[in-house]
Amino acid sequence: MKAKGYHVAVVGATGAVGQQMLLTLERRNFPISKLTLLSSERSAGTKITFRNEEYIVEAATPESFEGVQIALFSAGGNVSKQFAPEAVKRGAIVIDNTSAYRMDENVPLVVPEVNEEALKTHNGIIANPNCSTIQMVVALEPLRQQFGLNKVIVSTYQAVSGAGAAAINELREQSQAILNGEEFTPEILPVKGDEKHYQIAFNAIPQIDKFQDNGFTFEEMKMINETKKIMSMPELQVAATCVRLPVETGHSESVYVEIEKEDVTADQIKELLKNSDGITLQDDPANQLYPMPALSVGKNDVFVGRIRKDLDCNTGFHMWIVSDNLLKGAAWNSVQIAESLVKLQLV
Amino acid sequence: MKAKGYHVAVVGATGAVGQQMLLTLERRNFPISKLTLLSSERSAGTKITFRNEEYIVEAATPESFEGVQIALFSAGGNVSKQFAPEAVKRGAIVIDNTSAYRMDENVPLVVPEVNEEALKTHNGIIANPNCSTIQMVVALEPLRQQFGLNKVIVSTYQAVSGAGAAAINELREQSQAILNGEEFTPEILPVKGDEKHYQIAFNAIPQIDKFQDNGFTFEEMKMINETKKIMSMPELQVAATCVRLPVETGHSESVYVEIEKEDVTADQIKELLKNSDGITLQDDPANQLYPMPALSVGKNDVFVGRIRKDLDCNTGFHMWIVSDNLLKGAAWNSVQIAESLVKLQLV
Repeated sequence: MKAKGYHVAVVGATGAVGQQMLLTLERRNFPISKLTLLSSERSAGTKITFRNEEYIVEAATPESFEGVQIALFSAGGNVSKQFAPEAVKRGAIVIDNTSAYRMDENVPLVVPEVNEEALKTHNGIIANPNCSTIQMVVALEPLRQQFGLNKVIVSTYQAVSGAGAAAINELREQSQAILNGEEFTPEILPVKGDEKHYQIAFNAIPQIDKFQDNGFTFEEMKMINETKKIMSMPELQVAATCVRLPVETGHSESVYVEIEKEDVTADQIKELLKNSDGITLQDDPANQLYPMPALSVGKNDVFVGRIRKDLDCNTGFHMWIVSDNLLKGAAWNSVQIAESLVKLQLV
Repeated sequence: MKAKGYHVAVVGATGAVGQQMLLTLERRNFPISKLTLLSSERSAGTKITFRNEEYIVEAATPESFEGVQIALFSAGGNVSKQFAPEAVKRGAIVIDNTSAYRMDENVPLVVPEVNEEALKTHNGIIANPNCSTIQMVVALEPLRQQFGLNKVIVSTYQAVSGAGAAAINELREQSQAILNGEEFTPEILPVKGDEKHYQIAFNAIPQIDKFQDNGFTFEEMKMINETKKIMSMPELQVAATCVRLPVETGHSESVYVEIEKEDVTADQIKELLKNSDGITLQDDPANQLYPMPALSVGKNDVFVGRIRKDLDCNTGFHMWIVSDNLLKGAAWNSVQIAESLVKLQLV
C-alpha cells in the first residue's frame, strides 16, 4: 500500500456505474486522500457512504475540479464534453467512461491488459472503452500476440444495466407485470428518449444505441472502431451484431475469430487464455462448465469458454466471452487505469 | 376446401408442440375425417377439445395406427423410433418432429419453402427439421438460388419452449423467485435429466442439448448437418453457437452469410427476401423496425431484418432472423408438410 493518496473525483456518483466505481475503489483500497462526489443538478444532494464516511454529492461546476488529481467520469457524453476539459485545465487526469473522446486521436483508449503503454501518451484525458468492446479485446489480445488476428465476427447478448438504473427497473417491473398477466408500457429500452420503446422482459431487442446510415447501430460501430484502435490494428476485419437481453448484469458474446497461424488447436487456445491476465478460463464441456452472465456478476475477470475449432476453416475458432459489464466493462477498467497511472508514475 | 378428409393421428398430443399442432390443424382447416390423439402412458386419459369435440388421449400402441393416413409425431425420439415404423407398416405417412430420422439417408428432411420436391422420395417417414434450422434455411434458400451460398455463421438466441412445457414453467417460477428475492433450485435446463442444471431466468445458457466430443453441442451439429441436407449442399460451410435465453417462445438468430456473387447490395437482399415465400421482411432501422421474438409468437412466418452488408467482405451480409419456434419451428412446418403431401397427391 502506498502511503501517498490522491484527490479523486467521481462524476456521476449516483449512477449505476458510479456506484460500482465507488465500490471498486473501496475494494481495491485505492489510495485516496480526498474524495469529491459530483453529479448533475438533478442528483445533487444525494448522500453516499464511502469507507464509513458520509459524503454529499454536489452538482458539478468547473470549480469542483480545483485540486482534483484523478477524475473518473461516468455521467454521459455531454457532461464529459462540458467538464473534462475544465478538470484537465485544473491539473486533473480524466478517466472518461463515456463515448465522448474514445475515437479522438489525442486520447488514448485503454484496456490495461491490452495497451497499458498507451497511457504514456495521454494529454489529460484517457478514454475507457465501451463495455462490450473491453471484454472482447481482453480475450483477443493474447490470440493477436501469439497467432495473429485476421477477422472477428461477434454477436452480443447484453444486459440492461448497460442502459442504466432506469433500464434495470424497467426489466424488473415488466417481468412482474407479465408474470401477473398485467398490461405495461415500455418507456426506456432500447434507447432512452428515442421514438419507440419495446418490451425487454422475456424478449430480445436487436438494437443498442441508435442506427447509423450503414444499417449498423452506434453500439456495433463502437465495437468495430474501438477494437481496431485499442489493438492498433486498423486493418483488422471486425463485424458486430449487438442485442439487448432480459439479463440484469453480465454481457455475453459469441465470437468467431480467424487467426493468421494455421493448424493451431483449440487446446492451444485454451492453454494460452488460461494463462493470460484478466481471464478466467471456464471451458470443460464434459462437466458442463462454461461462462454465464449470472455467474459473472461482482467479478472483475473476463470469463472465456466454449472454445472450439471451426469445422471448415483451419484458422477459425468459436468462443463465448462473458463479463460483468459494470465492472470490467466500466468501473473496474476505469479504476484499473487509475492503478496503472499510479504504477507507471503518470499521476 | 377439399371434400375428402384424412385420418390423422397426433402423437404427443399433450406436449407443447402437440398442442400447437392441433391449433394449427384447426386454424388451417386441414381436411380431417378422423382424429386420433396419442401420448405416452403417463399422459393417457387427458381430455382435449378439437373443433368443439372432446377427445380422450390414448396411450400409443402399434394398433393405434390402424387406418391412420397421416401421423404427426412429436413425443420424443424414442417414441418415434418405437412407433413410426409401426405406423408406416399400417399404411400411414409419418411426419416426425423428433431428431430420430432426420439424418437417415432414406428419410427426406423437409422445409416446404426450400425442398418440397424431396417429399416425392419418401418411404413412409418424413422428418421435420430442428426448429432453429428451419427458420434459418427459409431465409437462406432465396440467397442460395439468387446469389449462391458459401459460408454461414449463426449465433442463436433460443426460447425455453423448445425444451418443453416444464422448461416454460421453470422460467416463470424462477423469474418470480428472483423478483421476490427467494431461493430456487434449477431442475430442468439446460438439458432435462443431465447432471447439472442452471438458472435460466435473467441469464443466458450457452448449452442446448448435450456436448459432442468436438466441443459443439448436438443442437449446434443439428443446425450444421440439417442445413446441408435440406439445401442439398454438403460443401456449404456452416458453424453454429446455440444459446438458451429467458424468452418463453420465439427463437432469434444472428446470421453472417457469405454469398458467391460479388457486389450485391443489402437492398437487393431485402428486395429478394421481401418477395420470398414464408418470409416477412421487417427491416426499417429509421423507424426502429426489426424482428423480435415477443412479436413473432402465434405467427407462421419467418421474420427477417437488420440486413446489412459486411464492412470488409464484399460478399458478406449480416441479418437477424426470428420465428415462433413452436409454429414454423415445429407444428406449422409439420402441418405444412401434410398440406404439401395433399397438394402433391402423395397421400
